[in-house]
Parts: sequence; structure tokens; C-alpha cells
Amino acid sequence: MRLSILIYDGLTTLDAIGGYEILARLPGMETEFVAAQRGIVAADTRRLGLAAFRDFSEVKATDILYVPGGPGGFALEKDDIFLDTIRRLDKTSTWTVGICNGVGLLAAAGLLKGRKATTNWFYQDRLRAYGTEFVAERYHRDGKYITGAGVSASIDTGLFLTSLIAGEQVAKTLQLGIEYYPAPPFPEQRPQDVAVEIQDRIRRFEAEGGKKQLAEVAPFKGMFELSRSAHD
Amino acid sequence: MRLSILIYDGLTTLDAIGGYEILARLPGMETEFVAAQRGIVAADTRRLGLAAFRDFSEVKATDILYVPGGPGGFALEKDDIFLDTIRRLDKTSTWTVGICNGVGLLAAAGLLKGRKATTNWFYQDRLRAYGTEFVAERYHRDGKYITGAGVSASIDTGLFLTSLIAGEQVAKTLQLGIEYYPAPPFPEQRPQDVAVEIQDRIRRFEAEGGKKQLAEVAPFKGMFELSRSAHD
Repeated sequence: MRLSILIYDGLTTLDAIGGYEILARLPGMETEFVAAQRGIVAADTRRLGLAAFRDFSEVKATDILYVPGGPGGFALEKDDIFLDTIRRLDKTSTWTVGICNGVGLLAAAGLLKGRKATTNWFYQDRLRAYGTEFVAERYHRDGKYITGAGVSASIDTGLFLTSLIAGEQVAKTLQLGIEYYPAPPFPEQRPQDVAVEIQDRIRRFEAEGGKKQLAEVAPFKGMFELSRSAHD
Repeated sequence: MRLSILIYDGLTTLDAIGGYEILARLPGMETEFVAAQRGIVAADTRRLGLAAFRDFSEVKATDILYVPGGPGGFALEKDDIFLDTIRRLDKTSTWTVGICNGVGLLAAAGLLKGRKATTNWFYQDRLRAYGTEFVAERYHRDGKYITGAGVSASIDTGLFLTSLIAGEQVAKTLQLGIEYYPAPPFPEQRPQDVAVEIQDRIRRFEAEGGKKQLAEVAPFKGMFELSRSAHD
């Protein structure tokens, strides 16, 4: 089984890693990090680089198409190459997964029209424009489309999808493997339970799409080059 | 404030990313991923490469020393260069953080002698040999030493440390930012509540230190080279 995680400049790493850390451990899973070009992809903080070791053209088909979110995702809602790749790989996927505003990328590709989906708390109002009904859940399944709420919801979503693929026992084994028995120091149950001034602060950040952050230059920019053999 | 996350061949990515995703967003934080050598570090799954853009010699001092765990960590308990680096950076750190069996690396460096610490569920019996008392908590503070349980506990630990550094309001803001309102599909409360056969399966994996996994060659090995300027 193949898991193809699409990564891009300005992704939020935990959107990808939460699901990866579980799904990549499924017996027989072949996991790949894929970007428009091979190379080091800078996360939204500009302080973490992830290796994309396959480019879009190298992935002919996949079983699980996985699209994380992040401030870099907003621009991709109008990126034909990115959206065409999503549409092409979705044609043969068994499961198509979106996390956070990665769900917006599935929606922008037209895959969620007439469907229900969850997404991050701040993106939810934007789904309607793509003909998708928002449901306030941590993760949601509509046919083969699995959507997750914001960032850390990638973990819950990954466990849920694992239970669908391999059953509850395997999911529980992997849950123990990553010791996912959460105990946050501030156990608010839902985003809307958080103080309004905190909600406003995050809303402001989200509204400007993390632009200030994305304008920073990653300290590793230009540091890593593809070796010649990688172009073969 | 500087956050130095030590990474190494065979780390478990979520050990590092759970804390990073929170701490790196603290205003004014300068985050760096550091390894013995600059280059692409392969995670334990062999399917994810992280960019180490500083080497040990480049980090003269740091405010937060952060050591994740993973099957690759066991060998480092006898690696003088790794342990000396931990000891050296700990001398001036404000906080020293260990997650999962990364706690064992702090212990092996002699930093936790006579102290209490948590660690992952399978490593707990090994702490005693280093003169450290295991406490069964999701995260624990003993002086400037902050320790976390297994893998995903890095998130809870990161939020806890954020509350110590910047206060509860900032921690709650970042918690909302990553939407950490967990809802695992199988809400067992503690590892020991999981069925015994599942515990045994993970115990077997841990006992052999993920050796089979680490023997695999990462598909991106040799693909990324340091550019000449990186050696300047």
C-alpha cells in the first residue's frame, strides 16, 4: 500500500507528521513525501526543512493521498499544477485525506462538492464556497474522503483511518506505539471554549495567512542541493 | 531565545515535532535543528528526512536544549560526542528537555542523577540504572529538567514548558493555534489499560530497538548534498 504525502512551501509540519507517524507504520506501507519538485521544503516556521524525495511526475498512482494544511496552502487553492495533481491521484486512490486547510485544497480541486467535511476552526466558513458542508468534528468520513480538523487533529484522523484500513486492534497498537493518551495542561474541550481575546489573536494571524512568517528566509535555503544521481 | 533540537539518525519524528510546533512559535524564538553533522537526517521509518542545518560545533550555547527519542537513540547512550554535546549545552541552558527515550540520553549524560523524570512506557525501567527515579506522568518538571512520556507526549510537554516560559495565556493561544483538543477514536486513558497482547507486540518491537526498521535504506539517501557554500 502506498501513502503519498504532498508537501509544499509553508506547510504546517504537524498536519503532515501526526498522520504520517501512524500510517507509515502500517505493515507493508510504502510512504513517500512528494512535492512539485524534489528538494528541501521549508515549513511555515522557516526553521524546519523536510525532504521531498519524489516529484509529482514520479507518482503515477497511490492508495492514500494525504494533503496537509498550513499558511502556504492558501495560494495553492489557485495553483493548477497542485490541484491537477490532487485530481489525478484521487482518481485511483482508495482514500483521500485532507487535514486543516489541506481540506480546502481537496475542495478547491472539486473533490468535496456536495460532500461533508471538517477542517480547522478558522477555515470552516470557506468550505461553503466550494459546495462543501462543514461538520464540527475532529475527523470525518464521507465515502473515501477523510478530513481532519486543525494541525494536531492529524493524529486522531490517522488513528481513525488506520482502524478503517487495518482494524481496531492495529489502530490501538499504533496508538500505544506513539503513546497517544493526551493530557494537555489546559483541557478546554473545544476551540470555542477558549477566551475570546485568544480566539481573536489567532483569527488575526489566520486572516493574514501567516504572511509575515512566510516572508522570512529559511536559514537552510540554498544549503542542500540535489545530487546529480537524483536527477537520473 | 534559542531552541536547539538535537536530531539524529533513527529519531522518531513526532518526539521532536510535537514540541517544536509549539515552542518554535513563541515570539522571538530562534529555532534550529542540530545534528553531529549538517545534512539530511533519516527518521526511524526511513521515509522522512529532516534537514539538520547546524552541526554541534556551531551551537555555542542555547536557552532550550531539546532531545527527542526514537530507536536510533539507544546507540547514542554510549556515544561520547553526542553525550558531551548534551553536557556542554546543558551547562548554560535555561531549560533542558527530553522526550521519550531522549530522556535516557539526558540520563546517560549524567544530568538526571538523583532527579525524577518521566519517559516512555517501555523505557521506564532503564532510568533507575542512571540513578533517576521514574514518575508515571505525561510530563514532569524537576528543576530546569522537563521530561515527557512517549512520542505524542511531546505536545503536552511543549505546552507545559510554554506556560512556564510565557504564561498560561500564551500557552492557550498556541494550543488553539494547533487545535489541540484531542479526541482519539479509542480513548483508553493509560498505556496499561490497553489489551495485554497489544502491550506485548509493542514490547517486542521496543526490545529489539527497531533494528529491522533501522536496517532499511532511506530512498533519499545520497539524494541531497550540502552545497559548497554550506561548508563556508
